[in-house]
Amino acid sequence: MTHALPGSADVLARPDARSATGMIHSMREAERAAASLQDFHTWFAAYLETESSEIRRIPFSELKGWRFEGPHGNLVHESGKFFSVKGLRVRNAPGAVREWDQPIIHQPEVGVLGILVKEFDGIPHCLMQAKMEPGNHNKVQLSPTVQATRSNYTRVHGGRPVPYLDFFRNASRHQVLADVLQSEQGSWFYRKRNRNIIVETSDEVELRDGFHWLSVGQLHALLSEHDLVNMDSRTVMACFPFDGAPAAPWLVEGPGIGSALARSLDPAHGSLHSPGSLRNWFTGARAGFTGEAHLVDLGSVRNWQRSDDRISHERGVFFDVMAVDVRTGSREVSRWTQPMIEARGQGVAAFLVQRIGGVLHVLARIGSEPGFMDAIELAPTVQCTPENYAVLPAEAAPPFLDEVVHAPADAVRFDSVLSEEGGRFFHTRSRYLIVELPPERVLVEPDDFRWLTVHQLSGLVQHSNYLNIQARTLLACLHSLLGPAGGERT
Amino acid sequence: MTHALPGSADVLARPDARSATGMIHSMREAERAAASLQDFHTWFAAYLETESSEIRRIPFSELKGWRFEGPHGNLVHESGKFFSVKGLRVRNAPGAVREWDQPIIHQPEVGVLGILVKEFDGIPHCLMQAKMEPGNHNKVQLSPTVQATRSNYTRVHGGRPVPYLDFFRNASRHQVLADVLQSEQGSWFYRKRNRNIIVETSDEVELRDGFHWLSVGQLHALLSEHDLVNMDSRTVMACFPFDGAPAAPWLVEGPGIGSALARSLDPAHGSLHSPGSLRNWFTGARAGFTGEAHLVDLGSVRNWQRSDDRISHERGVFFDVMAVDVRTGSREVSRWTQPMIEARGQGVAAFLVQRIGGVLHVLARIGSEPGFMDAIELAPTVQCTPENYAVLPAEAAPPFLDEVVHAPADAVRFDSVLSEEGGRFFHTRSRYLIVELPPERVLVEPDDFRWLTVHQLSGLVQHSNYLNIQARTLLACLHSLLGPAGGERT
Repeated sequence: MTHALPGSADVLARPDARSATGMIHSMREAERAAASLQDFHTWFAAYLETESSEIRRIPFSELKGWRFEGPHGNLVHESGKFFSVKGLRVRNAPGAVREWDQPIIHQPEVGVLGILVKEFDGIPHCLMQAKMEPGNHNKVQLSPTVQATRSNYTRVHGGRPVPYLDFFRNASRHQVLADVLQSEQGSWFYRKRNRNIIVETSDEVELRDGFHWLSVGQLHALLSEHDLVNMDSRTVMACFPFDGAPAAPWLVEGPGIGSALARSLDPAHGSLHSPGSLRNWFTGARAGFTGEAHLVDLGSVRNWQRSDDRISHERGVFFDVMAVDVRTGSREVSRWTQPMIEARGQGVAAFLVQRIGGVLHVLARIGSEPGFMDAIELAPTVQCTPENYAVLPAEAAPPFLDEVVHAPADAVRFDSVLSEEGGRFFHTRSRYLIVELPPERVLVEPDDFRWLTVHQLSGLVQHSNYLNIQARTLLACLHSLLGPAGGERT
Repeated sequence: MTHALPGSADVLARPDARSATGMIHSMREAERAAASLQDFHTWFAAYLETESSEIRRIPFSELKGWRFEGPHGNLVHESGKFFSVKGLRVRNAPGAVREWDQPIIHQPEVGVLGILVKEFDGIPHCLMQAKMEPGNHNKVQLSPTVQATRSNYTRVHGGRPVPYLDFFRNASRHQVLADVLQSEQGSWFYRKRNRNIIVETSDEVELRDGFHWLSVGQLHALLSEHDLVNMDSRTVMACFPFDGAPAAPWLVEGPGIGSALARSLDPAHGSLHSPGSLRNWFTGARAGFTGEAHLVDLGSVRNWQRSDDRISHERGVFFDVMAVDVRTGSREVSRWTQPMIEARGQGVAAFLVQRIGGVLHVLARIGSEPGFMDAIELAPTVQCTPENYAVLPAEAAPPFLDEVVHAPADAVRFDSVLSEEGGRFFHTRSRYLIVELPPERVLVEPDDFRWLTVHQLSGLVQHSNYLNIQARTLLACLHSLLGPAGGERT
């Protein structure tokens, strides 16, 4: 690259509030989108009609290309690619349970999750994809423009090329709104990260079968529908730059939660904790962390049992490793088998939020998950699978769980059941909740919890290893409150 | 913690430009410091007089408490604490040399490097420590207020408590100016990070023997003296918040490099590359990285030879592992032996800088070092030990090396020989240079290089795994150009 006229200030980019301000305002402009949400639903229903895939649970013996390699017992693909299921040994973990073994997915490569953005009639739109994934209980959900493992996009499996990939491979030709490596579930993946990238283009973009343009506001509105916006879409959406720019006065000065949120996106409105205080809290937790987790052979994992068709915890909780056979006409490869993880029970992930000094704050928690690359990340106020506590000590029950699941209806700002990624997780779903505490309630922050503004969260999500994937889904859900529904609530 | 009056905006902290603006201005106020630099030198010389330590090279057989454990050959301490010397096997590295083995220091714990700040007469001052370390060729250098491994501060060795540690352990009682885990040398340490923390207090602070208050400007001015400000001080200094706040007009509008630097600290003056473009560049490099490095037994390291008193590369380059006997009256423990690393040859670390549109930009490079926790970090424009290229392929020679070492004298803005950390590295020094290119020179950025403003670098240094330790030293040296010397140069 060159820079012409190095002596002139004309060559310099100025900090640009356009994208954030435009993003916020587009949340309110659902009417001006290129097509209505009704059009989207019609299109999506028609796509679903054509979807004829069949997914069937199979015993491990029917897996093709996959085997338990002796003597280690790891579940691997014969190509050495894709992923494997190994064991993880956890020692000296914080909390009530200090030691355990478990199966874990090992996939040491960085996939690409990309959303392509383009303005139509002044409103930014996202190119989304209707995509069948074998773990989706409803088969098809809404994916990012590109959702590809390295095995996919280097075409290890000999499938078709990945549409639109060049926009992300050559992103420097366009405007890059976000680009960051984000973690996946640290309970199920060992140090897995994907590249979350949002690229805005002014090029002509061919609309291919199975893809649809949605305005940023429409896409966020769809989060409130159960099992529609998939996990990979949600993590990328969390990286949309809504923060750091002033929104319009009519939005900032309103009485609703959308206005409290708009204030929370702009540092000028203040925060309960200073940036230095939050860094001290987070760095202290990371520096003081002494837990250890290391890969072991799957065959040596204690307290788990392998049957013909599943590997399960001996007490029937947590999750199973199982296998599926997939037949489809809609993917790069038309038939395959693969192992998956199937959670026992439905998870709960929730943010408690509160207007503090009129500015919306989110109660974030230091979360440690054994597969994290860097020990801890910020997690939702509550993140658990309530059924698992049947076998865990009483002190393991998470704080604020009752507060969240028994919240009065008028305090619930968001409530939707959303699926975990359907490429690895079978019928695995969580209820995502945002619950608002009344302003007069004084909540004593436990050591592992802090109230953060949304711009503080948004600043961190531009960097790796700060917000876990459930917190990122909830951040995207929070952003949806900038839309018309959020503005009307008080 | 509680927050009173949650409904009132009075409880909220506002983004605070005070610390940055105050920091910048204090750089120019050397005259108003609590004591003159001459006083400091007198004090330091007197301290050195009392320093009677003796450091002696010894054969490995004279190490006490340390041994090469069979059959692995790792060099370990009998307590299992402190650190060990193991082997690292590197494969598929980027660059001209793709594979090698080497010894490496393994110390899986987070130390504390802390500078205590307090205002005197409106000027922030840093509490610095004259500290003997066995690897310092001049014995005593200037350390942070606290420089302690976990072994030190948990007193594994039964030594004296670490002075001032409570200011950092209970930092939330004070103002935290920076708190971040930073990497150490990725060529010599395996995934080592230390907690870099700056705490400003308004409490009374007892001044203990061996400690001295220096204004922020004085401390930075001392960087230009050879081997005085130690590596641990420099990495913490790099985290000082100079960025994000406007400096006084008389500074911003001046013709000198200090003014170009002041403009570079404030995003309002613009940057050659947008934040999104830089994120795309950095994340792309990290996502595409496919090198691997894993610990192996020291005994299995190829191409290295162990003699009575050193482990050396068979071609006599890179570095040696050796051992020392230390006798001192000035440390927590008065006599000990330990292994160290001794580099062959003096390193060079340099930033090329240029005024682009009147704003100072720094040419940063994607650097990969095998011990990094996250594969790559930003590195100086040039970082190498020229002697090593005698045995490496010609294409391994780093770009811009000639440009830096043969720069005309009037282009050299900073030039000082500084020591690597004297607790692990024996007589290991590098020449740190800042060289300015004329504004009219058009430099084509190679793929791995980008021009960043100083506020872009400073924004990244608040987070882990972005700037390597040599780049952090150079960032501190850059900041020193805010002082009177920088203002007078044009």
